[in-house]
Amino acid sequence: MNRDDEAKLRFREAMASLAAAVNVVTTAGPRGRCGITASAVCSVTDAPPTMLVCINRASHAHDVLQANRNVCINVLGARGQELARVFAGMTGCTMEERFARCAWTPGEHGVPVLAEAVTSLEGTVCESKEMGSHSVLFVRIARIAHIASGAEGDSLVYFRRRFHALSHGALTHETP
Amino acid sequence: MNRDDEAKLRFREAMASLAAAVNVVTTAGPRGRCGITASAVCSVTDAPPTMLVCINRASHAHDVLQANRNVCINVLGARGQELARVFAGMTGCTMEERFARCAWTPGEHGVPVLAEAVTSLEGTVCESKEMGSHSVLFVRIARIAHIASGAEGDSLVYFRRRFHALSHGALTHETP
Repeated sequence: MNRDDEAKLRFREAMASLAAAVNVVTTAGPRGRCGITASAVCSVTDAPPTMLVCINRASHAHDVLQANRNVCINVLGARGQELARVFAGMTGCTMEERFARCAWTPGEHGVPVLAEAVTSLEGTVCESKEMGSHSVLFVRIARIAHIASGAEGDSLVYFRRRFHALSHGALTHETP
Repeated sequence: MNRDDEAKLRFREAMASLAAAVNVVTTAGPRGRCGITASAVCSVTDAPPTMLVCINRASHAHDVLQANRNVCINVLGARGQELARVFAGMTGCTMEERFARCAWTPGEHGVPVLAEAVTSLEGTVCESKEMGSHSVLFVRIARIAHIASGAEGDSLVYFRRRFHALSHGALTHETP
């Protein structure tokens, strides 16, 4: 194994220790309907409301998201593990079979909005930036379909290569 | 309240439902030593190993990080909540008082590496991108000081405006 490969492996090991929410990012449009599981997703700014999604340029979803531009970031709830696996391509389902697994409502521009998501943020890819093997897609958020509360709002978190359910109730301390 | 303010508030509410690991991003160099708590941090690519940090352009830390360029992303462990509050500026400590609160080792270029972090990734700001009120700093990772295992590797997660301890053991299911 060369030095670059060693550095990659150690980086992946460290990234496994960076807990992250799990999302299914969906799109619909001229290039068709598509969805992919993504955990490298974060808030950028609220002025104007913008998020980012990091996605492998070699993936089919990358080209479809870039071409359609209309996307929805569906934040998965604590029971969303199976859906995360399906949209990560871990189950061998076709794209249509993936969508058949749960209930979707059509958002603006027909983008699939996951009914059981903790929250679903619809928007448009406003810019993108290539960085090594990946692109960072910046998504200007135009509409937030729903925000779940109570147990429906519990989160699915990926940490140390496993899924975890994070309950609103399971807190250590409140912030002041 | 105008429509922009309403959209901001709703976006912030949705973002409170996006669980995220908590990090203290540190730097040292010509512009001095500085650290700030950040949860908008994610992995971009392992080819080459790169992360990103979103940071408010109005913050003092933003200018210092940009000028020094050498940074360390310290991923906080489950017991790091007080440190997160200190480096978020919630306790009124000066910068020197913040650093006095715990043990640091000097990384390359003298950047403070948090001894009790789950993992600490040192690198250089290789590019940045302005987006609304924030900048996205892309950090090329050059060195990973340590990666904790066992209970020392349990994570601090911010979710619904509260800190949560996420244990490696508290899994729902393993991935195959």
